[in-house]
Parts: sequence; C-alpha cells; structure tokens
Amino acid sequence: MTDPIEPVVTFIDAHRQRFVDELVTWCKIPSISSDAAHPEEVRRSAEHLRAHLATLGATSTAILETKGHPAAYAEWKVDPALPTLLIYGHHDVQPIDPLPAWHSPPFDPQVREGRLYGRGVVDDKGQVLIHANAIEAFVRARGRVPINIKMLVEGEEEIGSVHLEDLMQREAARLTADYVVVSDTAMFGRGIPSLCVGLRGIAYFDVEVSAHEMDLHSGSFGGGVHNPALVLARMLAALHDENGHVTVEGFYEKVRTLTDAERAEIASLPFDERAWIAASGTHAAVGERGFTTLERLWTRPSLECNGLTAGWQGHGPKTVIPAFARAKVSCRLVPDQDPKEIAAQVEAHLAKLAPAGVKVTTHYIHGGRPYLAPTDHPVFEIAKRAFSRAFGKPTVFIREGGSIPFVRTIADVTGKPCLLMGFGQPDENAHAPNEWLDLENFHLGIKSAAFLYDELARTTHT
Amino acid sequence: MTDPIEPVVTFIDAHRQRFVDELVTWCKIPSISSDAAHPEEVRRSAEHLRAHLATLGATSTAILETKGHPAAYAEWKVDPALPTLLIYGHHDVQPIDPLPAWHSPPFDPQVREGRLYGRGVVDDKGQVLIHANAIEAFVRARGRVPINIKMLVEGEEEIGSVHLEDLMQREAARLTADYVVVSDTAMFGRGIPSLCVGLRGIAYFDVEVSAHEMDLHSGSFGGGVHNPALVLARMLAALHDENGHVTVEGFYEKVRTLTDAERAEIASLPFDERAWIAASGTHAAVGERGFTTLERLWTRPSLECNGLTAGWQGHGPKTVIPAFARAKVSCRLVPDQDPKEIAAQVEAHLAKLAPAGVKVTTHYIHGGRPYLAPTDHPVFEIAKRAFSRAFGKPTVFIREGGSIPFVRTIADVTGKPCLLMGFGQPDENAHAPNEWLDLENFHLGIKSAAFLYDELARTTHT
Repeated sequence: MTDPIEPVVTFIDAHRQRFVDELVTWCKIPSISSDAAHPEEVRRSAEHLRAHLATLGATSTAILETKGHPAAYAEWKVDPALPTLLIYGHHDVQPIDPLPAWHSPPFDPQVREGRLYGRGVVDDKGQVLIHANAIEAFVRARGRVPINIKMLVEGEEEIGSVHLEDLMQREAARLTADYVVVSDTAMFGRGIPSLCVGLRGIAYFDVEVSAHEMDLHSGSFGGGVHNPALVLARMLAALHDENGHVTVEGFYEKVRTLTDAERAEIASLPFDERAWIAASGTHAAVGERGFTTLERLWTRPSLECNGLTAGWQGHGPKTVIPAFARAKVSCRLVPDQDPKEIAAQVEAHLAKLAPAGVKVTTHYIHGGRPYLAPTDHPVFEIAKRAFSRAFGKPTVFIREGGSIPFVRTIADVTGKPCLLMGFGQPDENAHAPNEWLDLENFHLGIKSAAFLYDELARTTHT
Repeated sequence: MTDPIEPVVTFIDAHRQRFVDELVTWCKIPSISSDAAHPEEVRRSAEHLRAHLATLGATSTAILETKGHPAAYAEWKVDPALPTLLIYGHHDVQPIDPLPAWHSPPFDPQVREGRLYGRGVVDDKGQVLIHANAIEAFVRARGRVPINIKMLVEGEEEIGSVHLEDLMQREAARLTADYVVVSDTAMFGRGIPSLCVGLRGIAYFDVEVSAHEMDLHSGSFGGGVHNPALVLARMLAALHDENGHVTVEGFYEKVRTLTDAERAEIASLPFDERAWIAASGTHAAVGERGFTTLERLWTRPSLECNGLTAGWQGHGPKTVIPAFARAKVSCRLVPDQDPKEIAAQVEAHLAKLAPAGVKVTTHYIHGGRPYLAPTDHPVFEIAKRAFSRAFGKPTVFIREGGSIPFVRTIADVTGKPCLLMGFGQPDENAHAPNEWLDLENFHLGIKSAAFLYDELARTTHT
C-alpha cells in the first residue's frame, strides 16, 4: 500500500506553475494597508482570497469586518474527532516607495531566475497560498483535508494588526483550535528548514519638533533662532550612547538576560556574517557592543529612525529654517518589554531632551509585544518532522528580529503555542523595493504544509 | 519756482493703485528658478518685465541670456554728461511649499489690511517695480529721467546668481556705471529708512549618507546595521558645540573680530528682541554664546540645516531602515570667509564624522561671498538724504543676515560700492508662505527712488 500522502505530493508537483500564476494574479491587487487613500484595494484583496478559498472545498468562507480593513476567513470542517489547525496569514502589503528602485512594477509580478518579484509575493500572500495550495492538493487528490482547518487572513498586519485582537475576541467561538500555525517569517537560509520560536515586539512613534509658525529665511534668521531640523538631529543623536546602547531611561529594565545556553545555541547556527552583509546589500554589521549580530537582531531591543522630513527636499537650494522637523521612530522589543511602558519612557525621554523654545510632540502609533515560544510543547517536534520530510534536512530553531504583534495575542488568547513556520528568505527584500519569493521554496513550502497536516492528523486530538 | 521734483511726486501719488495692480499682474507668473520643471515661467517673467520697461521711455531693452535663466535689461541713456546709475534686482522667486500654509494662492496676490500677499511681492518683484515706477514718474511728469539709468534684473538670484558673473563679464561694456543700487533687502523696522551696509555670504550643500543598496526591514535588521537617518542625525548634531559654535575645523579662522565701535553701533539701534521674536513667529532667540541677536544675525557665521529627507514620510508606520538620508545644509558667511574654502572645510569635516561602513557624499551647490560696504564713500550720504526726504526720518546703517552673492561680485568688478536700499520689512515672510509687501512702504519706496535719482543728478559726474 502506498503512503496516502503520495497523490497529494504528486498533485503539488503537477500544479507547480498554476500555483505561481494564481499568486501573480492576487499580487496584482495593491492592498497597501497604510495607504489611507485606497482602502478598497485591501477589501478587494480579501474578497479575491475568500472567493478563491471557496473553490477549494471549504465548508464555509467569510469576510470578517473590523473597524479598519477586513480579514478573509475559511473553514474546512471535516471531522470533530480530528484535531483542528488554525492558520494565520495576512493579505495586506507594505508601501512601495521608492518606486524608481524597483526593477519591475511592484504590482505586476515578474519571474526572473527562479524568483518571483513583486510586492507581497513573500510577505505574506505567497505564504498564505502555500497553505491554500496544500489544502487544494488534499481536497483534489484525497477528497478532503486530513484535519480540520481554519484559515484567518487579516488585512492589517503591516499596520500593527490594530483591530485583530478585537476581531479574535468577537469571533472567539469560531476560532477555537488545537494548534496554530503562522507562516509569515523567513527560513535561516536557503534550504535550511527552520522554525521560528521568537519574535521581537514593536513600539512605533511619530515625533515632531516645531519652533516657528512657518519656515524662516535662513539668511535673515540663521544663527539666531532654533532650527527644528538640527534640534531633532541632536535629539535623535542622543538616543544611543557610544556603545550603541539606547539611552532611554528604563529601556532595558525588563529585558531578559541571555543565558549561556541560549548564546551557545545561537552561536551554533551556520551564520556567515560576511555573506549576510553582502546579501543584505549593506556594508557593515554594527550595533550594541558586547553582542553578536544574531544576538542583536534576535534577543536585544533596538531603536531605529524609519524616516525623516523637514524643510526643503527638492532639487537645488532653498534657504529656509524649517518650521518643523519630523521623524518616524520605532523600537523593536524583546521579552519582557511592554510596548506601552516603552512608549511612555520614549515620550518622557524625548520631552526631557527638548530645549526650551521648541515644541516636541511624540505620538505613539502602535505597538506589539514580543514572543518566545514554549519549545517543549510536542507540536514543535511534529513540525520539525514535517518540515524535514519536505526539505530532506534537519530543522533548526531560530528567532526573528521582526514582529508579528498578533502572535503574542493569539498565544495568550488561545492558550496554544504559535508554530512559526515561515518560507521566506533572509534577503527577500520584504518591506523594500524588489521583494522576491524563491519559487523552489514556494514549492517545497506547499509540501511542508501538506506534511504538517499529515503529521497532525496522526496526533491524538487534545 | 516750484521744486522740479514736485510733478514727479504728484504722479507717484496719482498712480498709487495702478502700480499695485501692475505688480499683481507680474507676480502671477510663477518664476521659481529652483524648479527645473518649469524654466519657461522664469523666461516669461523676464519677457513680461522687458516689455513693461519698453513702455516707460527706455532707450533700449533686452533679454540677456545665460546658461540658465535669462535676465531682463533696460537703459535710459539721456545725457553722457550726467552720472549713470545701475539698478540691480531679480525677477525669479523662491519655491512655495508648504502650499497648505498659504492663506491665499501664492501666485494670485491678494491685498489684506494694507499688505499685498503673494510669492515675489517683496522679494524681489515689488522692489524692482519701485524703480520702474519712479522712472515712469520722471518720464511722464518731466519727459525724461534726471540721470542715465541701467536696469539689470536677473533670473537666478534665488539659486545663487550662478551665471551672473559670466553675464556681467560678457556685458561689461554695457554695464558701466558710476553708482550701483540694489533693492533686495529689508528696512530695520516699519518707517525706519535704512541703508544696508553688510550682507552675509553663503555656502550651500547637499549631504547624503547611504549605507545599503535599498531600504531594509527594521525588524529583520534593526540594531544590527547602520541606520543612515541616525548616522546623519549624529553628524548634524556634531556640527555645533554646546555653546552654539560651529565645530567645522577652520570655520572661524578668517572671521573678522567685531570692534567695540561696531558692537556699540549695533547696540544703539532700536531693537526690541521680544517684539522681534513675536513678529518672527518663533518662540526664542538662541544662538552662539557671547553675542547678541543682531550680532549673531549680522556679524557671525551660521550653519543651518534647510531640509531633511529619509525613508518613510507618509501617514502611519512603515518599518524600514532607510537606504539613505539626505540633508540640505548651508552656512552664512561673514568677512573674510570664502565660500570655496568653507565648502572644502565642511566637506572634510563631514567625511571625518562618517563612521566606517557608510558613504557620505557632500555636494557643494553654490556659494557667495560676504559684503561690507565702504561707508565713507560720498554716495552713502547722498542716499541717506534721499531716503530721509521720502520717509521724513533719519536714515540708519544696518546689516542683513541674508546674502546677495552678486553684490560682492559687482563691487569687485565695477569698483563701485553697492548701495543696498531695500524696502522690505523684517517679518515679510520672504522665502516662507504668505510673503507680503507693505503697500505704504511700496509707495514711499517709489518716492525714495525718485529722490535718489534727483540727488544723484546734482552730483558731479565722476
């Protein structure tokens, strides 16, 4: 007797190109959630996915409304005696600027050398379709999925999952599950199956320094009044000390100290810093003194400036002292930092840095708590097996410097650990121009998902 | 026998409103010289002025081409035995952003409470027409102007008069004169006739810090790579010390020390710092320790940031570490600082401040030398008399923090001192939204110009 997974795998192999075509079609919808001007595109993206899932044997599909952008939802209820898996993903995408840096149009995905280039191809539409395709393979090849599946694909991940907790509380009865899988992270490297067991949290701010009612002539006033651009520069410069430590008072108070075991585990990974620098398109690994690059990215909080705006930004000279200067500032957080506490600390610190005669406004835009998975839970071993079956290699535990604010929420709300099974690549340009998806990984990802469902079907329903 | 100036003054009084209407018409042409997209508007502005001057009895008018924007030129050659006055002005204007801050459209000038609001109304189209109107008054009321007049109105003052020196060298034969008057500055205060005897120079730069080929995800990379926005902030913050001194090596080397007499002269002016702060729309007078506000603005060099650009500047969050960050930086210079020397010092200093692993590019956009007039030359007493006749008050010597790069050039090229007879107000919002012209001052300015020509006619032709 053949392994009943075989026809599923055969189906996945046979439909490899069609799966890519379907991803391209979906990625043509510019579902930028931070763009207040085009909310209808995010809605169109949710509707597109819901309609697609409805053709894949789902027992029900829905659009779940929020106060912001809607989520798409589908269920495959096959047998109450079988375990239920909740799959989380998101269908909104990052903005695309700077547009001139794209080598092909962000919303007309193109294949070049085994990669699909376009906004959302890997973050996160491609990863959502990895699951949809695995489900389709079971439905077409075997008549049904081997476990109960619920798929929740939200539309606000890139703006901090601002309404997801409300939605999950409201729909709690519908969303009960035994296991939760999130596919929105990257693998440690090409061909290395990796389960992400830690995510940093985030706190994001708008900061404005203003000094005059309007721009002043830099000749008539230069040297005699505050310059908000320079005041902002001095304030930003004062947020780190010469060792790369963040100077915000209380910032490190709740940061868990790395154990020797944790440091050893991280050090054991095949991390090639020089290759990482080259692949990132940057020129140096720098940061907090006393920590390795992986420790900095995975286990230490950061404070970054995400954008600057002041005065004249066009071609050539304009001789003004800007009326105001603005910065986007965000912190990545690690256990047990709390975004609201950090927000209060940052706001107080910036107010303290402001000289008399300028007005500093710090606006907390959103935050998300950090996450560390309980890796002693049996689902992690199950997932390792499934992942290794698809890739033919041992699966490693890694962390990720990014944030999925929702992960900590769902872990707390459901009491189930979140399995972070991501299929991205570390250098895939998520959030940057020329985002790309490795098509071989996409294909193996679909198989990994199929194996995961298969492995979960063999567990006892808890 | 009546004073032969009387019919001229009567004509100026009679045509007060028409002169304003003609200024409004000219100011509707958006002659922004820094806007590479619309050079034809600057040309249209030059053509408009030339055509207007041709109707005012000019013996010849011309468009003088440069490698950039053209100048308008006109001559009133009445008698080689009479002295010749060269009038300088400019017909290009500053950019208008931020547009939402304007209370009425910048290029549809509106009168409110005795002020005309619009881009270019005072800087410098209004001041150019002050002379054109005075000339017209002589031509209509007395048949001709009382001296020979040449008027050169360039189109690149707001971008540093980049081609003016070339133009003046080329047209040297045409531009010979006994006296030179420049009307592009402000009076010390409302109703106080003032001759500006000092201007600061300028050196203007584009500065770019880049660290990656493209924006990086601030989660995946935050804390582990250079952040160009923060690196730029640290570099800008390091350009002043805690006493407000510029830290650029060699910056003060050629700065002339203020004499006790100069400090006393400045201190004797009726300067109300609190009123100046309120009128400026700012909230504090701050700057280099050890100097008063007027000393800072008039006699000390400054270094300002005129604009900042980096990463995400839209609404809401975007989690990137910008690939690059840019600043517009400019210095105001005082005798005997040289813009090219300062440019080299600033470039070297910024390069020294840059950490390893980032690329810093400093591009010197343009510069102009500072100017101090030889106030013992007789033309300054002549001008004081003319100015005081129009305003009925003693005329004071002042300086100006701004720059007219051309002034130093023409003073050197012609060997004649430049008379800086300006009719602006210190709080007129030149270079900012809601630029305005005091219409009473405009009117008295026309009379002042008429009196100046009248006084010059009485001098011996040198």
